[in-house]
Amino acid sequence: MHNPHAYSLEEQAAIYKVIRERRDMRHFLPRPVDNAILQKILAAAHHAPSVGLMQPWRFIRITDKKIRQAIHKQVDAERIKTAQAIGEYEATARMSEFLRLKVEGILECGELLIATLCDKRESHVFGRRTLPEMDIASVSCAIQNMWLTARAEGLGLGWVSLFDPIELAQLLNMPADAKPIAVLCLGHVVSFYKEPMLVETGWKTEKPLADMLMENGWKQDDAK
Amino acid sequence: MHNPHAYSLEEQAAIYKVIRERRDMRHFLPRPVDNAILQKILAAAHHAPSVGLMQPWRFIRITDKKIRQAIHKQVDAERIKTAQAIGEYEATARMSEFLRLKVEGILECGELLIATLCDKRESHVFGRRTLPEMDIASVSCAIQNMWLTARAEGLGLGWVSLFDPIELAQLLNMPADAKPIAVLCLGHVVSFYKEPMLVETGWKTEKPLADMLMENGWKQDDAK
Repeated sequence: MHNPHAYSLEEQAAIYKVIRERRDMRHFLPRPVDNAILQKILAAAHHAPSVGLMQPWRFIRITDKKIRQAIHKQVDAERIKTAQAIGEYEATARMSEFLRLKVEGILECGELLIATLCDKRESHVFGRRTLPEMDIASVSCAIQNMWLTARAEGLGLGWVSLFDPIELAQLLNMPADAKPIAVLCLGHVVSFYKEPMLVETGWKTEKPLADMLMENGWKQDDAK
Repeated sequence: MHNPHAYSLEEQAAIYKVIRERRDMRHFLPRPVDNAILQKILAAAHHAPSVGLMQPWRFIRITDKKIRQAIHKQVDAERIKTAQAIGEYEATARMSEFLRLKVEGILECGELLIATLCDKRESHVFGRRTLPEMDIASVSCAIQNMWLTARAEGLGLGWVSLFDPIELAQLLNMPADAKPIAVLCLGHVVSFYKEPMLVETGWKTEKPLADMLMENGWKQDDAK
């Protein structure tokens, strides 16, 4: 049956293509990002859905080199702590493998942005009484919009979550009730990974969609 | 400067268009969703980024009418509790306004899906040592992909977070360490809201992007 609200096949193809080709990037060229494109990507973020229309996203653009270096230092300290934790929870060999991975491109990327949850969130009850974490969900939808539009503009985006949110909040003079959730590296790249970098490097294999789907209740299956 | 990775202008236009026209829908036509399209939308979800490639999303498709009705009952009970909480935190008049809003289309939509966080998440340390909530971020990116592809297919999607996650988990026989985060209503619509429904109904006004942007640190501004 014809659906009058459906986009053209060409438009649909573009949307499925960008979803398929988006990558979490860690390798960047040290080249600036055109400001008009940056603003379009931020506007796309701002078009995201949000729980009860609370628009909990805030973005701090880092243009001061010293602050960029301080953020890199914090992330690198957390990288070491994460390696140790992987050694404890998984296996020592995994710790060494982890340390060989490139996990961020903070010093090279053209633009560095910090995405944070806003302050004064407790007054937003709609859709959050039992699930206060819906603010993170909304900011994540905004970042996914950035990821897709960046890819369409030929730019890479990487979401780094290897940092201590309290330390980063202090560095950026954030109020106690706001919280950084992403260090976003945006910039030009030599090429996009053909597969997710963690697959290409052999760190992990992907599970198929079929493993994610159930009907009418949780599948009691040890493989899940 | 020419960027060889940039998509064509037509492709970019389609991607910006769907981001702009996506809506959180609550009004549906009681008409089934074509299964091939449902599978394409789920595949788009599965192309989402995930922290440390953990792929924490699970989807439970509800095809049993009795379970659908039980979910509706849970959501409606939470709707009343949320109204009371809004009355307490905001104002009594807001409680009455909230109760007049349509907040879900669970009984009408063609497909009902529950998005949940997977079980056994504590073993995933990469990117989550200091920010365990990154699993919610990944599932949210997956849902944003569904929202965009549904819109391109001419279908509406609504994310309902008005439920008690423990009660819903029990109804669906979920393990204690998995957690439902979204009741997703997917289906045909008469029309898409021109503005977010909460704006159209006068429940709330949107803040502009400029209010969300800061540079090198938190803006010490009472308006923020």
